[in-house]
Formats: sequence, C-alpha cells, structure tokens
Amino acid sequence: MTYQAPVRDQLFVLREVLGIEHYANLPGFADAPIDVMEQILTEGAKFCEEVLAPINHNGDKEGCIWSPDNTVTTPTGFKAAYKAMVEAGWPALGADPAFGGQGLPRVLNLAYSEMSSSANMAFSMYPGLTHGAYSAILAGGSDEQKQLYLPKLASAQWGGTMNLTEPQCGTDLGLLRTKAVPQADGTYRISGQKIWISGGEHDMAENIVHLVLARIEGAPAGVHGISLFIVPKFLPGPDGSVGPRNEGVKCVGLEEKMGIHGNATCVMSYEEAKGWLIGEANSGLKLMFVMMNEARLGVGLQGLSQAEAAYQAACAFARERLQGRALTGPKNPDGPADPIIVHPDVRRMLMDSKALLEGGRAFLLWAGLQGDLLHEAPDEAQRQKASDYMGLMTPVLKAYFTDKGLKICSDAMQVHGGSGFTEHFPASQYLRDVRISLIYEGANGIQALDLVGRKLPAKGGRAMMGFLADLDAFAAENEADAGLTPFVDGLKTVKAQLQEGVMWLMQNGLANPDNAGAGSTDFLHLTALTGLAWFWAQIAKAANARIAAGDTDPFYANKLVTGRYFVERILPEAGAHLAKLKTGAELVMALPAEAF
Amino acid sequence: MTYQAPVRDQLFVLREVLGIEHYANLPGFADAPIDVMEQILTEGAKFCEEVLAPINHNGDKEGCIWSPDNTVTTPTGFKAAYKAMVEAGWPALGADPAFGGQGLPRVLNLAYSEMSSSANMAFSMYPGLTHGAYSAILAGGSDEQKQLYLPKLASAQWGGTMNLTEPQCGTDLGLLRTKAVPQADGTYRISGQKIWISGGEHDMAENIVHLVLARIEGAPAGVHGISLFIVPKFLPGPDGSVGPRNEGVKCVGLEEKMGIHGNATCVMSYEEAKGWLIGEANSGLKLMFVMMNEARLGVGLQGLSQAEAAYQAACAFARERLQGRALTGPKNPDGPADPIIVHPDVRRMLMDSKALLEGGRAFLLWAGLQGDLLHEAPDEAQRQKASDYMGLMTPVLKAYFTDKGLKICSDAMQVHGGSGFTEHFPASQYLRDVRISLIYEGANGIQALDLVGRKLPAKGGRAMMGFLADLDAFAAENEADAGLTPFVDGLKTVKAQLQEGVMWLMQNGLANPDNAGAGSTDFLHLTALTGLAWFWAQIAKAANARIAAGDTDPFYANKLVTGRYFVERILPEAGAHLAKLKTGAELVMALPAEAF
Repeated sequence: MTYQAPVRDQLFVLREVLGIEHYANLPGFADAPIDVMEQILTEGAKFCEEVLAPINHNGDKEGCIWSPDNTVTTPTGFKAAYKAMVEAGWPALGADPAFGGQGLPRVLNLAYSEMSSSANMAFSMYPGLTHGAYSAILAGGSDEQKQLYLPKLASAQWGGTMNLTEPQCGTDLGLLRTKAVPQADGTYRISGQKIWISGGEHDMAENIVHLVLARIEGAPAGVHGISLFIVPKFLPGPDGSVGPRNEGVKCVGLEEKMGIHGNATCVMSYEEAKGWLIGEANSGLKLMFVMMNEARLGVGLQGLSQAEAAYQAACAFARERLQGRALTGPKNPDGPADPIIVHPDVRRMLMDSKALLEGGRAFLLWAGLQGDLLHEAPDEAQRQKASDYMGLMTPVLKAYFTDKGLKICSDAMQVHGGSGFTEHFPASQYLRDVRISLIYEGANGIQALDLVGRKLPAKGGRAMMGFLADLDAFAAENEADAGLTPFVDGLKTVKAQLQEGVMWLMQNGLANPDNAGAGSTDFLHLTALTGLAWFWAQIAKAANARIAAGDTDPFYANKLVTGRYFVERILPEAGAHLAKLKTGAELVMALPAEAF
Repeated sequence: MTYQAPVRDQLFVLREVLGIEHYANLPGFADAPIDVMEQILTEGAKFCEEVLAPINHNGDKEGCIWSPDNTVTTPTGFKAAYKAMVEAGWPALGADPAFGGQGLPRVLNLAYSEMSSSANMAFSMYPGLTHGAYSAILAGGSDEQKQLYLPKLASAQWGGTMNLTEPQCGTDLGLLRTKAVPQADGTYRISGQKIWISGGEHDMAENIVHLVLARIEGAPAGVHGISLFIVPKFLPGPDGSVGPRNEGVKCVGLEEKMGIHGNATCVMSYEEAKGWLIGEANSGLKLMFVMMNEARLGVGLQGLSQAEAAYQAACAFARERLQGRALTGPKNPDGPADPIIVHPDVRRMLMDSKALLEGGRAFLLWAGLQGDLLHEAPDEAQRQKASDYMGLMTPVLKAYFTDKGLKICSDAMQVHGGSGFTEHFPASQYLRDVRISLIYEGANGIQALDLVGRKLPAKGGRAMMGFLADLDAFAAENEADAGLTPFVDGLKTVKAQLQEGVMWLMQNGLANPDNAGAGSTDFLHLTALTGLAWFWAQIAKAANARIAAGDTDPFYANKLVTGRYFVERILPEAGAHLAKLKTGAELVMALPAEAF
C-alpha cells in the first residue's frame, strides 16, 4: 500500500474540533470556507500521493550526487516534481498576495505540509526551507529586497536556504566566524564555510537565495555581533531576471547521512561572495529566529508526518501478513494463519501510534491556527494569547512529536518483523529519515531548555498560567458531561501533575539553574502529554456531538476508543516524568566529566 | 576515540558483585580463577580493540558483495581478522575440551562476547551463529556427527548457520514448507528456499555447516512435523577434510538492510541438497530452540554491546565538543565555550545510558553464570534454580536490553547533534546496526508473549515466585544497612509493583488471554526494571564494602551515584508500566482491523 493522505481526519479536526468556521473574520479565511479547504486538501492529497510519494524510495536509494564542478544532481524524478509543484502553486498557498501568494490560512498550509512531508520528506524540505527564507525577508528585508526576492521565493521558482552552522559552531552561534566586509557600493563580501546547508545546491530551481549569518568586520564578539545577509547563487537583475553567477558561492561537497538522501545537505564555501545585509547590522540572529520558529513547528510536523506514513505501512502489513493464531482462537480459520493484527502486542504498537498521531494532528493544526491568530486576529488580546501559546508550544511540539515520531517509526518497523529491517520495505527509510528531525532546527534538548529557561518564565509565566487556566475552564465546563468523564478525569489528573512540575521548577530552578536543565526534557514531555489530553478531550467532545446528532459513521465511535486508549495507556507516563523532574540536578551532575 | 573494552567493570562484576571465586567447584572455573579471567579478558580486549574495531566502519560502508557465481565477498579486512580469531582460539573459549574447546566458564565467554560485539557486531555474528550450530549438534547430534562437526565448529574453522525463516514463515514456523526426502543411504535430499540466513555464504571459513529446518515427506503439518538437518556447503570426508561441493546448496542473493552490512544476510536455495537428520524425526524445533535460547541471550548482549560502544563515542564527543556555557557559569573560561558535557540535558542522556549499561552488564553476566550453574552445578536444586532463572530471564534480557540498546544508541546520536546524523561519525552505524536486535531471534513482542504465556505460568509460577522470594530475602538481609537504604527502598517498591502485576496477570490472563498479551511488553519491562533494581543494590553493596575497606578509588563512589540515579530517575517508569498493564485488553483490541 502506498501513502494515503489523511484528509478526512484533517477536515474533522479543522471543522469539528477547531471550529474553523468561527474564524471567517480573519483575512484569508473568508476566501477558504471549509468546503474550499476540502477541495484544496483533496487536490493537495492527489499531488502528494501521485507525484511526491512515488519518488520517495528512489530518492533514498539514489541520493543527491555532487560533481567536482560544484553542481548537485537530485534523484530521478525530483526535477519534474519540483516543476509540477511550482506550476500547481503549492508553495504559494500561505504566502502574501502582495508577493504572488494565495494568502490562504497558515493552518491550511500546515495541513498540506503534513501530507507533503509524509509523501516525501527529503523533497519537501526544499520548498520548506524556501518558505523560511521568504519569511525572514518578509520580516526584515527592505522594500526593494521584498519586491525582488519574495515573489520568486513564494512560488519556489527560486530556492532558499538557511546558513547558520559552521564546523566549530552549531547550537552556539556566538562562535560564528564567517565574515562580511562592507563595500563602497553598500554590498558586502562574505567569506567563510557553512556546513549542513539543506538544499544549498541543486538542479531544480532557477536560482538559490542563501540567507547567511556572518559577522561584519569589527562587529562585537558573541551573538550580538551577527548579521544576516542575502547571498544569491546568481546575481539577480533588478527585474528579477537571473544574472551572472555570484562567483564566490560554491557547494564544495555533500554530507553522507543516515537518511533524507534525496535532500542535498551541502558544505558551502563563501569566498568574497557578494551579499546584501537584511535588516539592521548585528541583529541577524533575531531575524534568523523568525525562520527558526516557523521551521521548528514544521519540524515537529515532520516527525508526525513520517510517523503517519510509517504507521500506514505497518497497518497494511499487519492486516496482510499471516502468521500465528489469535490467542482467543483462529480469526481466519480458512487461511494458513491469522493476520498479525489479531495479536495484542501488535495492536498495542498500532494503538500507541494511532493515539499519538490523531491527537498530535489536532495539537499541531491548533498551533497552525494560533499562527494565523497571532498575525491576523483583529483583537489585541486574542493576538497576545496566540503569541503566548505559540511561544510556549513551539518547542514542545518540535521536540515531542519528533521524539514520538521516532518511536512510531521504530514501532512500524517492529510490526514488519524482519522485513522491516530490509530496504525492500519502506520502514527503514522512514526511520532513517525521521531521525534528523530530533536534531536539526535546535536539538530536542535545546527545545527543552528553551521551554524551561525562556518560554516558561517569560512575562511572569503568563503563557503557562493561561494554558493551565484554559484547562481548568474546559474541565469545569464539561465535568457534568457523563460522555466525557474519562477524558475530563484524565485531563484534571495530568493538569495537576503539570502544575506541580511548574511549581517545582519555580521553586528550584532559580536556586540552581541546573535543576531546571536536568528536568527540562521530562517537563517538556509532561507539557506535551497535558496538551494531548486536552486535545483528546476536545476530539471526544466533537465525536460525541456527532454521535448524539445521529451520525453512525464508525469514525466517531473509533475516536472515543482511541482517545480512551490515550488516557489509559499513554497518559500514565506523565507521573514518571514528574517523579524524574522532581529529583533535580544533584545526581545528574554529580559525576566528574572523566567518569564518563 | 575508539572503543575501549570495559574490562575493569566486567572484573568488578565478576569478582565483587557475583563473587565468582565461590564457584571454583564447577568444571572450568577451577582452571580460571579471577586472575586468569583477568588475563584472558585483557587479551580479548586487545584483540577486539585492535583487530575487530578498526574494520567495523569500513565493514558498514563496503558491505558484503554477492556475485552471480553464488559467492559472497566480505568487506576488506574481515577475512584476515577471521583467520586471526580462529588462530587465537577465541571461538573455542567456552567449547567442550572433548571437541577441542577450552572448556572455560560460559560467563567468561559472555564477557568476551560483549567486547567482540561492541567492537564489530556484524563480524561477531559469524562466530556467534557458528557457536549456535555447535550447541545444537552437541545437544542432539549422533556421536559420529559430533566427532565430525564439533571440533571444526568449536574453532570456527567451519562456519555454522541457522535456517528457519522462509518467505511465508518467520515467527510461525508451523507454516514451513522446505521438504526433506529420505534416501536409501540414510541421508535426505533437502529442497526449499530460506531467507535472512546470517552468514549463509562468505569467503572466510573453509566450510559452512547449515542447520536447516525442513519437513520430511509425509510428516504431520504444523510445528510437530519439523525436523532438523545438517546440510554442509562442502561434503566432509570422514576425517574432517573438505570434500566436494554439496551441489544443491546455493546463496542466490543478499538482503539489502538498514545495518549490519558486514554480515552476509543470505537468501539460500536448497535444491535436492544432501542433508543428515539430527536427532529424532519431527523433533527439530526442540533442537532449534537449544540454539535459539542461547542466541536470545546473545542478542540481548548485542543490544547492550552496541549501546556501550555508542555511549563511549558520545562521552568522548561530549567531553571534547565546545558549545555554549554551563548554566551555572563558565567551566572552561579560557576556551571559546564549555564542553557540552556541562549541560544537564546532555548529562541526563549519558547518565541514563551509564545506569542501564552498568546495571545491565551485571544482570547479563549473572545470567551467563546461571548458564554455567544450570549445566554444571553439582547440586540438583542449584541446577533447577538456575534453569528457572534462565527460562524466566532470557526473554526479559533479550527484549529489554535491545529496546534500551536502541534508546542508548539514539541518545548517543543525539549527544552528537548534527554530526551524529552524518556517516562521518560512528553514531549512525551503531543505531542502524543495533536496530535488528529488537527483531531477530524472536521479535521483542514474541519475547514478551513467551514471558507471560510460557515462562511465568510454567510449573505453577515457580521461577517468578523464586525471584520474588530472592528479592524479599535480599531486602530483609540488607534493610538495616544505612548505606543501602535508597537501594533497598527502591527494590521493595518495584518488587511490590511487579508482584501486583503478577497477581493481575494471574487473575485476568486466564479469563482472557488477550489481557496477558496486551500487557506483556509492559510486564516484561517491569520485570527487567525489578531485576536491574536488584543488581544495582548488589553493586552498591559491593561498592560500599570496598569503600568501607578503605579503597579510595572513585570507581566505587561513582557506582553509588550511578545506582542512585537509576533508582531515582529510571525506576519510576515501573509505575507507568504497571498502570498500563492493568488496563487490560479491552481498548487494545476494541477497534476492527479496518479502522487502522
């Protein structure tokens, strides 16, 4: 079986869980009532299933090929698919109409991105990072820069990249050495080496716009001396035409990686390459974080996306593979054996996956909607609330759904048995591809530190307090609803655990910041589980409403089963996370470095 | 840094935790007092570090190459290393002196196997499976077969393989189709296709002895009609010389796999190949399980071994990589940044790994000692106890330490950040190699089912009751020891949780076997955590004794810290496993197959 985009489930979340029709007052939403969203997602599903998914496996096998003339050839079919994608306008879905975009809701774009990333993660990174470059120029570029670059990036006619990492500096950008020398004409000459540049060179776009972090000669050391530059592969004419090669920009090699072989991970050399400053000097990091935050949500989505694709492959295998008999007696008595989906431990893996995937989809689409509200809500209080939520939940979604994405991909391989370890089945590629998502755009430990060190204490803890209050309000409102009892009970329990974790961090993190660091990952998982409990309660409420209205589609009854599974068989992990968190830093930090 | 064999820690476990000198009455042990063990392990470490580890990475990159003449070429260096290994006598360490073995304790052989597997898992599988073939012929072969094959297999001069799987039958061997036709001379003609045959063909040994499961013409269907055959690649002369090719035996291809590229995973074709029955007709499965049980313990060890190697690489990286500053102020103020080992979340991953690895090493070496006692103890009660423990703990050790092996390898990659995802660093190979260990020799779900369905209820639950009684006895004996308080408390808590899990399974598993199946993996993890709590308490006791005796080596104080970390930050997972277990099968099994 090949990948089937979960349009039905996405529409259920958009319509019945998030009540998307209540947001018709926002720009873009009026143009896309739910039936239009349905058409767009159905078309998008077709594109992902029929164009992107079929070239995923050969993309892994062939990989990208670097040539000594510094060019990179993408795998068979990628170039044609890229062209088809640009022509169909998928990259422009959420971009600003002022720059050729379609101006549709971010939440809709996120739903499309899920499918695209499930169908072909390596391929989808090319337009994904291009959109990041678009966002940074939109946020910080001059009008001239916007006019010149944004339409090309919005359509993905030109590719975009983020150039942060250097051999000696990844997470710690203060160590950055790439330098920028101002020229008389207002441009800069950029020199340095950047590594792990996704899509840094390839054969699919007319031009590639590198956004490069560098230090202007004489700028302060550390993170406060970093500026952001536009360094295009080809120097554009003022009319947006593609001019001569920017001579100093070169891809000098590709990384050999465990996965995402279809994406060109480039070593980029800049030797007096021509560049243009974006925004203010020495404030490049702020702009890069515009790209980063967007990218982090996208990476959380990648974790979920690969997991969805892997889960689908595992379900198909489990329904078809005949091996052994059910513990309760044959379920396929006329066959040589029962399909392995009859075995409880196979079910356990599939149910774990299903509960995380469906709850996670609601959580992530809700975050996409917060992105719309944050920018577009007419009401300042609503924008602030959305901004608080985005700040708080971005690291949570990035780290949790990539951690769980890996678990689900690994379980999908396990369901396949020996077949899963062979490259003849898709499980290995999904597992190898998803693994990077725990690392890039800030390793998951950095997300956890961002959560406890920045997002939690920000503005006196306003975002977290708002979250806890929303949970209380939901519980109070739905407590009397007998159909929601297990969900509201589960939510109240985990909310109390999260609150206890918050209190512990407040009391102990200030006294010794290592206490916050040592508990950060457990706290992040506790926060994610609480969020999932909230979304499963909302999903159950929506499903109950449909059932009460006489809808007999088993889709809704199945939601209630899967949600109860989440509460009973996944939520108990919250207690262990809280217990670990509360042990503090002592034992984590006690040993000297040489004891390891 | 390259792999350093943990001889010091192994000796600590053997001498101070397991009190190996108390077993001098067992055959083999008298020849290997602890100082001799130390010499052997030190030599073994040298061989693994200097011969096997250096060819691990190129083994992964080059892989094995199949040629259309049905031969397989192993990676550069493998042939020479194999020859050196045979000459040094490492495969013969634990084999019977009657067949050219050294007759040394199994527990010592297990300690050597840990190093060998850490240094090069793909390579070490060749002698590993050869030893499995040795054990099956030792257990079931005729005297003539033993004389002919065992000396060659003991030395690994000839390789050995296990041929179980066919395309339609993996876990469910009842579906097996390979057939054996009796010949007038007492031999059989074997025909069928076998897949996933590790070491089925290669260029390192003079001959390869395939042990093949097949159905004698007219035998009953299902598992009771399966027999085991010796099918050598070259037909041996009665003097053990290598005679003509067994024409019907061919390797017709290799599997392309996610990892262990240096091991040849063969598709074997048997076309009227000449074979000899081992043991009784239709009782082949019993003999195959002799190999299997031994192999399962070995696979648990593989999980731990890859994890140890990956952990060592992560520690080295974390001590060297400079990135960011400690939350509590610079620790390397003269450098551009601090080594990342100062960061609590990096520590958390390393401490998790260290606590599981060191506790796991004690647990596994103890199991190796049970293997010796089971065969060699003079006292029937002692043999029975060891047999109970081996039965109970084999599935636990196989599944738990491969699950955790994967986690540790993944955490080791995470510590490396982006570098870990590139094939330039070793983390990717460790992660890709270890992944198979969760699958082969019975996927981990099968281990869990073996535990709850066979090992737990066997003989009225005698093995589990004996385990619980031993835990009670340990707690009672050490309760008054203030230096052990956290360890004894932790052990008592988790023992009560395990007991509650046992009671729940007894009450609910009979009523509905799906209840046992649905909780099997959680029960297995709960059992493993309880075992680890026991071993950490024993390690702490041994460390305390050394400290009390005036030993100031920080090795012992570090053990206490790591053990307390285990109790405080890993053991809380037991509660979640118990909670999940007790939810039973209802929600696991509720959805129809088409809902997935």
